[in-house]
Amino acid sequence: MKETSAVPVAGNGLLGRRYFLKTSASAAIGVSAALLSARASAAQRETWMRVPGSGMSEAGAPSRFETQLKRTAIGAQPGTVGSGASRTPLEHLDGIITPSRLHFERHHNGIPDIDPAQHKLVVHGLVDRPLAFDLESLHRYSQVSRIQFLECSGNSGALIAPQPLKANCSTLHGLISGSEWGGVPLAALLEEAGVQSKARWIVAEGADAAAMARSVPLHKVMDDAIIALYQNGEPLRPANGYPMRLFLPGWEGNASVKWLRSIHVTDQPAMTKDETSKYSDLRDDGIAEQFTFPMGVKSVITSPSPGLKLNEHGIYQVSGLAWSGVGVIRRVEVSADGGVSWADAALDEHVLPKSLTRFRCAWHYRGAPATLLSRATDQAGNVQPTRTALMQGRAPGSIYHCNAIAAWQIDANGEAHHVYV
Amino acid sequence: MKETSAVPVAGNGLLGRRYFLKTSASAAIGVSAALLSARASAAQRETWMRVPGSGMSEAGAPSRFETQLKRTAIGAQPGTVGSGASRTPLEHLDGIITPSRLHFERHHNGIPDIDPAQHKLVVHGLVDRPLAFDLESLHRYSQVSRIQFLECSGNSGALIAPQPLKANCSTLHGLISGSEWGGVPLAALLEEAGVQSKARWIVAEGADAAAMARSVPLHKVMDDAIIALYQNGEPLRPANGYPMRLFLPGWEGNASVKWLRSIHVTDQPAMTKDETSKYSDLRDDGIAEQFTFPMGVKSVITSPSPGLKLNEHGIYQVSGLAWSGVGVIRRVEVSADGGVSWADAALDEHVLPKSLTRFRCAWHYRGAPATLLSRATDQAGNVQPTRTALMQGRAPGSIYHCNAIAAWQIDANGEAHHVYV
Repeated sequence: MKETSAVPVAGNGLLGRRYFLKTSASAAIGVSAALLSARASAAQRETWMRVPGSGMSEAGAPSRFETQLKRTAIGAQPGTVGSGASRTPLEHLDGIITPSRLHFERHHNGIPDIDPAQHKLVVHGLVDRPLAFDLESLHRYSQVSRIQFLECSGNSGALIAPQPLKANCSTLHGLISGSEWGGVPLAALLEEAGVQSKARWIVAEGADAAAMARSVPLHKVMDDAIIALYQNGEPLRPANGYPMRLFLPGWEGNASVKWLRSIHVTDQPAMTKDETSKYSDLRDDGIAEQFTFPMGVKSVITSPSPGLKLNEHGIYQVSGLAWSGVGVIRRVEVSADGGVSWADAALDEHVLPKSLTRFRCAWHYRGAPATLLSRATDQAGNVQPTRTALMQGRAPGSIYHCNAIAAWQIDANGEAHHVYV
Repeated sequence: MKETSAVPVAGNGLLGRRYFLKTSASAAIGVSAALLSARASAAQRETWMRVPGSGMSEAGAPSRFETQLKRTAIGAQPGTVGSGASRTPLEHLDGIITPSRLHFERHHNGIPDIDPAQHKLVVHGLVDRPLAFDLESLHRYSQVSRIQFLECSGNSGALIAPQPLKANCSTLHGLISGSEWGGVPLAALLEEAGVQSKARWIVAEGADAAAMARSVPLHKVMDDAIIALYQNGEPLRPANGYPMRLFLPGWEGNASVKWLRSIHVTDQPAMTKDETSKYSDLRDDGIAEQFTFPMGVKSVITSPSPGLKLNEHGIYQVSGLAWSGVGVIRRVEVSADGGVSWADAALDEHVLPKSLTRFRCAWHYRGAPATLLSRATDQAGNVQPTRTALMQGRAPGSIYHCNAIAAWQIDANGEAHHVYV
């Protein structure tokens, strides 16, 4: 085959977008005349071709062989049932949509069991006409839907540890998911209520037992905030705010308040427990920065990654996700030599604003130890920082907004490990 | 409020994209000081705010209140378990993604229970090197993912009945779903096998008990066909071809052969049972047209529709789906007076090629009987035909490729019914 076309474009075996496989590097399996003949024979067909399959159903399920399709690192804080997190199994997924049942969770006092017929959202405060909306009334307003990411601001916080945690992609980076979010623009509801001229913020409160509440600047609300009713085409699920949640594209997940019951229009932030005791960024000079809402430009390689072994030498796909709270991903680069040289990754067709973007790169794994990194750049020119740069000025334990370049070392056995570079 | 802004743009109450609600038409609920005070009082909070909620889980589920979220019109042909269909509940969904568990099904001998470790795809016939691929080897190739529709060519076939069937949106039109499909471009595998110069077609065969097989022109295969491994971010589900299926963007669903086991490269179509006894289009002159692959430009209003009652007079969202096998949807118009006048609908942000596109229009329902229609136009200028035009030259019982304009009549009680116009 066209061996000369398999030209590396960066160190340690990264290949360009157009390459042809040498037989020795290919993943294809040779086919004998005997195999072809056997497969053409009805008598020798696979077991499952010889009996009728199962029938249609009201709802489908994953294959019984896909046992790894579950949220991981499920942990509640000691003494609580529902204050904690579970993570999306990024290393077993592909594309830019996360199945709703595998969307990450972060709750502060569990998932409330809300009867939608009894739930109301009230808009009040600095408005001319306080208004209430139940689910039926919200459905009468014109909606929008968009594919966007949601990331917990604590995602990847483990990277501030002095030594790299021995953990997989899901455990380290799984507090990020992508969905189609649909609902009513909050601006339309506020226009109807009549926002008064001195209004600058809203305080959004959830109907969970934590009464989670966050202050959000009015300009964001009027820009692209929605009252989300749908996720991935179906009504929100309880773990994601059923029957309605605030959704703030590109901003830290905690501010997209779930189980939304109240929008209080105000002239200043409320300084709730959820934006003072948590979700502020402590610096090493003792100052805590508040309201650092947009999530930074970031990427992570999901495959290969710990737990996904490369079983032989040859060409593999390096695949991962990139995203930025300010808009569109412009570029993702991949390195196989720990950052000495970089190759541009290919981006999948849908490069959408404030959405996950899937990148891919072909890599010839030859068995030598290699260190795989990815580095994203967004439409504003922001480049994902190194871990060293990110740690500058951070206080110990300050885990939020960790968007540093992450690294997997692939050893001579084809196994991947979390390392720092 | 700004009543004068609620200017109709077409007959029977269709409103422009920017409108303000009169109090009388609004869906909002007035708020009393007593309600505000009660909601601010911890003692009077909703039941579910007074107890800790449930904890995190490996996999989430829909709310127990959303009992309508299931595939409908599930039917197997007499004497069979798995030859039949189930339909997506379009009227309870929104956006452009269909949850995988609610994707429509059409099987010809049930769903095989395939062990992925034992499944192989063989590429053979007019190639220099016959090759086999198992799931692990396919995962090493660079993949692509795209959001695209899949429609059974029998969808909406009920519209050829002389009288309109009393049925809901799902039963009539639910053999359409939208997903993110991810996998390996088939062109890459065929290039590796070395397609010979006289090759013109492939014959794709599934590993189900029907050994479903379809002939596909080579030009389509080399253009945008993939061996799909992922749907909506996770591995394919058994009902959609696990562990791998052919996926032909924009073409009739049946040709996207599930449980793919063989690609036979040939110089002519195989004339399988599945493209002669079925999936051909019988004309009234006795000629059966074969290989009419692309799905025509089409739209359907999903809300309001039968079963979704308008409980009062006022402004409602009219929402629906449009799609075309040739590419992008350029325009969707909505009529509330049975086609006398039309208003341009707003399209949601993501207007993607060969994908579902969500459209919306504001409508002031005043209780008079109204007939709601939608009409889509695609990038090639194709306009969705009337039912009368579609029926020209069709033989009785020829149900495939039914993309006619569909109609819902809304009566004075706010109920919707399927009608012909």
